[in-house]
Amino acid sequence: MRPSERRADELRPLRFTRGYTRHAEGSVLVEFGETRVLCTASVEGRVPPFLRGQGRGWITAEYGMLPRATSERTAREAARGKQGGRTLEIQRLIGRSLRAAANLELLGERSITLDCDVIQADGGTRTASISGAWVALRDAIDGLMAKGQLKQDPIHAQIAAVSVGVYQGTPVLDLDYAEDCTAETDMNLVMDGSGRFIEVQGTAEGTPFSREELDALLELGAAGIRDIQAAQLAALKGS
Amino acid sequence: MRPSERRADELRPLRFTRGYTRHAEGSVLVEFGETRVLCTASVEGRVPPFLRGQGRGWITAEYGMLPRATSERTAREAARGKQGGRTLEIQRLIGRSLRAAANLELLGERSITLDCDVIQADGGTRTASISGAWVALRDAIDGLMAKGQLKQDPIHAQIAAVSVGVYQGTPVLDLDYAEDCTAETDMNLVMDGSGRFIEVQGTAEGTPFSREELDALLELGAAGIRDIQAAQLAALKGS
Amino acid sequence: MRPSERRADELRPLRFTRGYTRHAEGSVLVEFGETRVLCTASVEGRVPPFLRGQGRGWITAEYGMLPRATSERTAREAARGKQGGRTLEIQRLIGRSLRAAANLELLGERSITLDCDVIQADGGTRTASISGAWVALRDAIDGLMAKGQLKQDPIHAQIAAVSVGVYQGTPVLDLDYAEDCTAETDMNLVMDGSGRFIEVQGTAEGTPFSREELDALLELGAAGIRDIQAAQLAALKGS
Amino acid sequence: MRPSERRADELRPLRFTRGYTRHAEGSVLVEFGETRVLCTASVEGRVPPFLRGQGRGWITAEYGMLPRATSERTAREAARGKQGGRTLEIQRLIGRSLRAAANLELLGERSITLDCDVIQADGGTRTASISGAWVALRDAIDGLMAKGQLKQDPIHAQIAAVSVGVYQGTPVLDLDYAEDCTAETDMNLVMDGSGRFIEVQGTAEGTPFSREELDALLELGAAGIRDIQAAQLAALKGS
Amino acid sequence: MRPSERRADELRPLRFTRGYTRHAEGSVLVEFGETRVLCTASVEGRVPPFLRGQGRGWITAEYGMLPRATSERTAREAARGKQGGRTLEIQRLIGRSLRAAANLELLGERSITLDCDVIQADGGTRTASISGAWVALRDAIDGLMAKGQLKQDPIHAQIAAVSVGVYQGTPVLDLDYAEDCTAETDMNLVMDGSGRFIEVQGTAEGTPFSREELDALLELGAAGIRDIQAAQLAALKGS
Amino acid sequence: MRPSERRADELRPLRFTRGYTRHAEGSVLVEFGETRVLCTASVEGRVPPFLRGQGRGWITAEYGMLPRATSERTAREAARGKQGGRTLEIQRLIGRSLRAAANLELLGERSITLDCDVIQADGGTRTASISGAWVALRDAIDGLMAKGQLKQDPIHAQIAAVSVGVYQGTPVLDLDYAEDCTAETDMNLVMDGSGRFIEVQGTAEGTPFSREELDALLELGAAGIRDIQAAQLAALKGS
Repeated sequence: MRPSERRADELRPLRFTRGYTRHAEGSVLVEFGETRVLCTASVEGRVPPFLRGQGRGWITAEYGMLPRATSERTAREAARGKQGGRTLEIQRLIGRSLRAAANLELLGERSITLDCDVIQADGGTRTASISGAWVALRDAIDGLMAKGQLKQDPIHAQIAAVSVGVYQGTPVLDLDYAEDCTAETDMNLVMDGSGRFIEVQGTAEGTPFSREELDALLELGAAGIRDIQAAQLAALKGS
Repeated sequence: MRPSERRADELRPLRFTRGYTRHAEGSVLVEFGETRVLCTASVEGRVPPFLRGQGRGWITAEYGMLPRATSERTAREAARGKQGGRTLEIQRLIGRSLRAAANLELLGERSITLDCDVIQADGGTRTASISGAWVALRDAIDGLMAKGQLKQDPIHAQIAAVSVGVYQGTPVLDLDYAEDCTAETDMNLVMDGSGRFIEVQGTAEGTPFSREELDALLELGAAGIRDIQAAQLAALKGS
Repeated sequence: MRPSERRADELRPLRFTRGYTRHAEGSVLVEFGETRVLCTASVEGRVPPFLRGQGRGWITAEYGMLPRATSERTAREAARGKQGGRTLEIQRLIGRSLRAAANLELLGERSITLDCDVIQADGGTRTASISGAWVALRDAIDGLMAKGQLKQDPIHAQIAAVSVGVYQGTPVLDLDYAEDCTAETDMNLVMDGSGRFIEVQGTAEGTPFSREELDALLELGAAGIRDIQAAQLAALKGS
Repeated sequence: MRPSERRADELRPLRFTRGYTRHAEGSVLVEFGETRVLCTASVEGRVPPFLRGQGRGWITAEYGMLPRATSERTAREAARGKQGGRTLEIQRLIGRSLRAAANLELLGERSITLDCDVIQADGGTRTASISGAWVALRDAIDGLMAKGQLKQDPIHAQIAAVSVGVYQGTPVLDLDYAEDCTAETDMNLVMDGSGRFIEVQGTAEGTPFSREELDALLELGAAGIRDIQAAQLAALKGS
Repeated sequence: MRPSERRADELRPLRFTRGYTRHAEGSVLVEFGETRVLCTASVEGRVPPFLRGQGRGWITAEYGMLPRATSERTAREAARGKQGGRTLEIQRLIGRSLRAAANLELLGERSITLDCDVIQADGGTRTASISGAWVALRDAIDGLMAKGQLKQDPIHAQIAAVSVGVYQGTPVLDLDYAEDCTAETDMNLVMDGSGRFIEVQGTAEGTPFSREELDALLELGAAGIRDIQAAQLAALKGS
Repeated sequence: MRPSERRADELRPLRFTRGYTRHAEGSVLVEFGETRVLCTASVEGRVPPFLRGQGRGWITAEYGMLPRATSERTAREAARGKQGGRTLEIQRLIGRSLRAAANLELLGERSITLDCDVIQADGGTRTASISGAWVALRDAIDGLMAKGQLKQDPIHAQIAAVSVGVYQGTPVLDLDYAEDCTAETDMNLVMDGSGRFIEVQGTAEGTPFSREELDALLELGAAGIRDIQAAQLAALKGS
């Protein structure tokens, strides 16, 4: 029995609230149960130095947690003077995943920054961030196209992500914090709309996992991602 | 005529949403029109080194802005590796203002951190932060008292804040961003429930201001703060 | 009775020593009693990136304290690897106050940095800095005009500052450290030569202050600033 | 055809040189072809603050690259003032992987730091680091046991790692830099001596990868890791 | 002919002003011509962690330059967020040199920090700092002895320093900035009262120097240091 | 008797291994007994901003120690977030010494960075670094000349360095760590091929040293450097 009484293959209630804030070109509050992340897409008409003058665009991500998103207060990274290893690792993952969605040549010499800020954490913040950031990116690109600033859609893939893990011996989908703390194995999957993989990151927290367990987790995750992608598309229709 | 078509002495619509997030001992989303700040109060059972062993508590504040709270994206302070001067100045002001609300001896050897994170900015984020943080602090203290961890209420004052300024020659209350950008004078007032001052901070942005203008701004602010304090109390009743 | 036996409305002995060091375009040692601050004005023929190519100038300030300017040694900010919040707040105040003195268009594409370094601290270092920096700025501008590098004087206002506060229930002028430590209210005023306000910053350190107390402090400060401005002008004549 | 003319399932020449430097409790130069990493294990008789007084030990890792380990000089992280995201990510991976090898209770209140410093880079530095660090750890533990400081062996698993990837459409084992740069998919596997997984990290660099490709990579990697583990054991016998 | 018209073996006018500021236990303004450095000695009743509980004291130094001590403004190290290599090198030299003056066992578990802050620079700031810091240290120790906090004098040597160099082919004593900039060789000597060496640091700026030149510089420096030591003692008598 | 049983004027076994790594334009492992330093020379086709457009080149150095190069593990500077004072001092010394070898005009608008990374430390790492870096620099320049990128050889001097010191009252050459720890005087000499001095840095660690001791150390060092220079030339012939 999962602490939340969900079935092993059951996602938490999902919600994508578009237009959550007003200034960003894309602004989505994504909720996976009690996990809430604000994902904004900011379009700027310049690219980082290493790309200048090549006519290509750039997509990058930054991740943060409000200090009291967690059950114990976490020290503010701005006050500590640096982003921690976990933060850097997560924002690198989000950036890579979203770049896999787009053709950077078609984007032109622009950059889009996806800021994923965790308002409340209950497990799965990185996968929620990726899933929400894709919707924010889609909105930002649609805005550029509507204003005629882009002729051709640079987005060629729908990206979503979910966590899976082995909890008390059973593979389960979309771990919340209570499960995540004690899971033997923790895996994050990022997939595209055709069910292919962008990222697979699995870690044995306690005992190593077998090939059979890995296979079961991959199945469970693939099914979950299909549901998340349906929710993304439904949210985009609902404007 | 103000850009928002408000009267000179008219506040923006105010809202204090308590319990906005679940982990913090106090969690309030404060809205002054389009300005939205999440204020959380985190109670910890220890004090900073300089206070240890004295039986007194501590109240402090931290302030941050999500990168896309603003119309142009602002660089993330955690990524830049330090908090800017404006941030430090604001969080020092919030901390001082809230310490004026409480008797730190009665708080006992505990600290309360007020995190004020701007979700969306439209002027007046520091005064909204103070007004919201007081409600979050009140909720956190009430929680400690309800659990019997505090016998006597350490809060002896109700604190609220507002901005006033001279916009196109006229003193106005509660400036939004459109007014703030071009105001000749900008003043932040922090007051207690008896109409006395905790902080007065006025700056001539363009032309210096006269004693008469100063007096007019102080009157306007005092009236505004009375309304904000009424809204704070109404929100606290509404749980 | 004040610790220094001064009357409530009495300034400490003032001294502005021009040409205190030889390299800077303006170099003034300002003394308010035992408080001594070296204020230098450095002229450079370029402006910060955000102003380039606009034909306008820039005036900014930096503030520091020698480690043993204080009764207990203060850690060196360069060694700690960052400037503290108090330092940043003070240097922002000095910079804003001095910019109010000048027409930056007339200054041309140059920047002037006012470095205020506290040699010895006995209360009121930020207001002494502002008062001394104005004299250093005046000297630097006069030098540019004498060399024909400026045709028209960009300085349109005389700026001075003083602290006032409520000490043992009585409003007093120009607090020294012994008073500052225990004052109930502490206020810094920056004013121009016509008695108008550039900055008003008042803080209740202990009990909040009433409108009547605020009025008394403003009167006291205005009178003190007139005397400081007379001393500034006398020093400028004395070269 | 691979640039190195290796077969798809062929490792580069492997070498583990134990006792490469004299001060460390374990010191191994690991070579995977032209990739050379010095892995040292340092035993210290204390643990980080969060573990003090619990009677448990700690294993952690740090990773670095000499500036000219790469074909173009890379800026020195010590001079830049911080470790980059890639470095932090890699050292977190090495630390997690090695902790999976040991029972930290049996280690007692000691910490072992595995420093992996890349002398020369030609792809696969993180997996070489893990494979070499395990040998250094084994040597350090054997030393503690030989001196009677440990009664029972805290190491319960043999850990090795390898990279696999899809290069020009073909799954290949142990990518060198020429392959790594252009690989469509890049995957790092960390496994124990019974063929179970400690970490699986796969990234689609260009096109997403299918479940079939993933399966092929997992097979290839598992076979490669068996060979690396045989080489680790041979090196340990050879003292 | 030297730019200052001094003879090759002539020091600049020397002045040691004791009691220059009031808070420090020792406070000396040292002037070598236009070079002016404020040296303060601060006594604190604790030692750094690595010395705790050993009953021994510690002497250390910090060095800084006011931004406009130099002919062009130098960026403030506190604002840049770190001390430069030159600063660290100089303060390490000052600290080592002063530790050579004292018996740290006799000092007891106290530390003395010598802050050397350059008010105006005209060459030779590091040697002026050492010479001035010794007087400040002497004053601080005399104060401790006068108050009965030290029974036995921990200072067993008189320390002074001077620069020598080869300027236009001729060895000269006590280089000013005009000489320092173009000197072929620059050497700093730190010596005790019996004419033995504490530090010898010679650098060929342009052409390498011969053993004969080295010998000439050592002679010149030794004579200069005898005069500086006489001036130190005269200043100490003059209180 | 020296701990290593060497005669007072005996160097440790020297070895210069050229081509130690493959990417750098010059790559030399230098060994002075158990001290081993990897010195690489990296050529880049640009110079630092302060030299741009002048047609001159630049030579600089960076120094680092692997954490377990020492008998106790030293904290990694990249992880601590800054290079220590000792590191900065050493790399400034190496850079100055190597610049004395070359005519920067003849080098053209290129920079050469000499990275000296200590693999294993047993005293004398800075002098070994200088001696090894000169060989790496020579190799890098020879490569540029062989490719026709330089017409004229910019290297006009052969540079080598050695440490000397007073150990148990006797001047000795090339101190190892056991001697270095307890030496009364420690001196580093950098000399050119004609026996002239580039740098002389002597420090009294315990008792001050006399002019006679200084002379003896200079003699001893000069003889040692002649042997090191012979070994440098032999290594360069041996390719």
